[in-house]
Amino acid sequence: MKSNTTFDRIKVPTLLVDEQKCRRNIRRMAEKARRSGVHFRPHFKTHQSAVIGEWFREEGVRSITVSSIGMARYFADAGWDDVTVAFPVNLREMEEILDLAGRIRLHLVANSTEVVKLLDKQMQHRVGIFVEIDTGYHRSGIPDRELSSVQQIMGECLGSRNLMFQGFLSHFGDTYEVTGSEAVKAIYLQGVHKLRDLREKVDTVGNCLISIGDTPSCSLVERFDEVDEIRPGNFVFYDVMQQSIGACTEDEIAVCLAAPVTDLYPERGEAVVYAGAVHLSKEKLLYKGEWIFGLVVELTADGWSAPLPGGTLTRISQEHGILKMPPEIMRTLERGSLIGILPVHSCLTANLMRQYTTLTGLSIAMNGGA
Amino acid sequence: MKSNTTFDRIKVPTLLVDEQKCRRNIRRMAEKARRSGVHFRPHFKTHQSAVIGEWFREEGVRSITVSSIGMARYFADAGWDDVTVAFPVNLREMEEILDLAGRIRLHLVANSTEVVKLLDKQMQHRVGIFVEIDTGYHRSGIPDRELSSVQQIMGECLGSRNLMFQGFLSHFGDTYEVTGSEAVKAIYLQGVHKLRDLREKVDTVGNCLISIGDTPSCSLVERFDEVDEIRPGNFVFYDVMQQSIGACTEDEIAVCLAAPVTDLYPERGEAVVYAGAVHLSKEKLLYKGEWIFGLVVELTADGWSAPLPGGTLTRISQEHGILKMPPEIMRTLERGSLIGILPVHSCLTANLMRQYTTLTGLSIAMNGGA
Repeated sequence: MKSNTTFDRIKVPTLLVDEQKCRRNIRRMAEKARRSGVHFRPHFKTHQSAVIGEWFREEGVRSITVSSIGMARYFADAGWDDVTVAFPVNLREMEEILDLAGRIRLHLVANSTEVVKLLDKQMQHRVGIFVEIDTGYHRSGIPDRELSSVQQIMGECLGSRNLMFQGFLSHFGDTYEVTGSEAVKAIYLQGVHKLRDLREKVDTVGNCLISIGDTPSCSLVERFDEVDEIRPGNFVFYDVMQQSIGACTEDEIAVCLAAPVTDLYPERGEAVVYAGAVHLSKEKLLYKGEWIFGLVVELTADGWSAPLPGGTLTRISQEHGILKMPPEIMRTLERGSLIGILPVHSCLTANLMRQYTTLTGLSIAMNGGA
Repeated sequence: MKSNTTFDRIKVPTLLVDEQKCRRNIRRMAEKARRSGVHFRPHFKTHQSAVIGEWFREEGVRSITVSSIGMARYFADAGWDDVTVAFPVNLREMEEILDLAGRIRLHLVANSTEVVKLLDKQMQHRVGIFVEIDTGYHRSGIPDRELSSVQQIMGECLGSRNLMFQGFLSHFGDTYEVTGSEAVKAIYLQGVHKLRDLREKVDTVGNCLISIGDTPSCSLVERFDEVDEIRPGNFVFYDVMQQSIGACTEDEIAVCLAAPVTDLYPERGEAVVYAGAVHLSKEKLLYKGEWIFGLVVELTADGWSAPLPGGTLTRISQEHGILKMPPEIMRTLERGSLIGILPVHSCLTANLMRQYTTLTGLSIAMNGGA
């Protein structure tokens, strides 16, 4: 490892963020949205940080997506006043929802007339309502063929004073299961086709936006002519999973876990690092034929290197990580040195670490973090 | 769900702990250790809570195991003065180690003469040194056949004023890969045989304890005649993984995630719950032929039911959980109701949730938690 005073001070597993790469990822997506004339409403569940939120604001972003009411409140406190909670309404948080609706321009996801009626009964302020449409991923949302269910919800909103129907929201999560630009674009096109088809069939009075969100689609589709809004989140950091899908290059991955090396087992071709499931999560990925939890990089004076050939994090338990590495890299390691690990899934890693450290040593707080 | 005022107040995913089950698990293990005449040094990385630590103290426990220096410091602050850090020494935390050694009876794991020499050079207080022995799990530790490496470390300690050699520490992690009492016991017996064999071969001046730690062995072996110390951790809560191994019954699982139901898809036989990877972790388990992230239980007036037949958590993303359930259970669910989920891996779930709620509604804090 080259000398870098930030890294010299690191004692325990630390999530590094490369601000430059991060800002570049934000700028590129914001520009692409502008070129396509679509609304950019990035998902902030990946970074969960008011400081990183400001990097988006500097690129002109004014409206955001989150995945919980708690997260919406955190960003409302940080000055974000136009927020979509892209998770089906949790009726047990009605009080918090009503409160938030009085503070900001809030948009909710309601997938049943029951929920819409309950919201309507109690809502004192205007809120936007999206209906989530399931175009094939089968996580949440009304299947795109259930025209009457969708129309019922739209009808309820039409008869409501405070519920403003916004449109259809969808997450093409199946893009995470494929590899390559063509396969991702095919899922995107099939999904938006279904959404547009649905929009044509229902009676819309006023607007009916089409809002989509997955990072693979948003990264690999060149122009979003078919939709009105994009909500990607992961692209701010990317990760090995996205690189493996083809949604980013290695060089665009903007976070890296700095991990102390504690034990060396050259005869096994393995090293033990202080980096486990409580730092990286147990998200694993089939990468070049083996299951991995991360890729190994060298920390350098100004960040980190490209992944070291053959260096993978192959097993993890609560705090232990086992690195597999070819002899030429093993030889360069010492007990007490730091190694970098590119995470398989940056959202879950960030959520566990609750704090970032920039390459110049600044600490960046997260919601509920240190 | 039956009426229970604790549950009525729950709005977001909440980790319930059944104090009675938990105390029973602690008592049973403490008694078994006493019957066998072995030292009981439970691993506190599972619960990470000073309050739950007191439940151990009430069963006579005075010495504990942790997996990081930060956790050792947290429990030292809570009055625990005899602590083993069962993780290879991280040389980058030397300052914190030296400080802690001055405050409590600290025991470290050192797997190389290099680390032992560095510790000896700076140590101002007495600390115990365990050498970790790898009997076949190949995570960390010196292979049991590397007699000379072990003897070198013991020799270094013998020549040191402050480093007190304690013995061999081992984790038979391969017990997590098998099912049933016989298979677990076979791994245990093979492991302890190797440790005893090693102890006979090395020249020991004074004591050489044998310390072992996995929950499957500690739960399924009846008497620990072959070892001196046991360090199980997970048994305090157990989980679906342990039940699947055969290390506990369903009824001994002492934590359960209360999760709000947000969407119902009877035609898919699925419901969406607010319980995802940020609550349960992505640890999955092959259970009756399918990969699951948890088992579904009904919350009752005084806790939770046995797992509902056919109710499984089959997919999770950051906040979404997808429950698969037979029609007769689906019919009983409502949007806004609570359902219970027994986690696959309670250690990782607790680490993510950072707080417990007892069945009477008390909040129990964790290290660094809310």
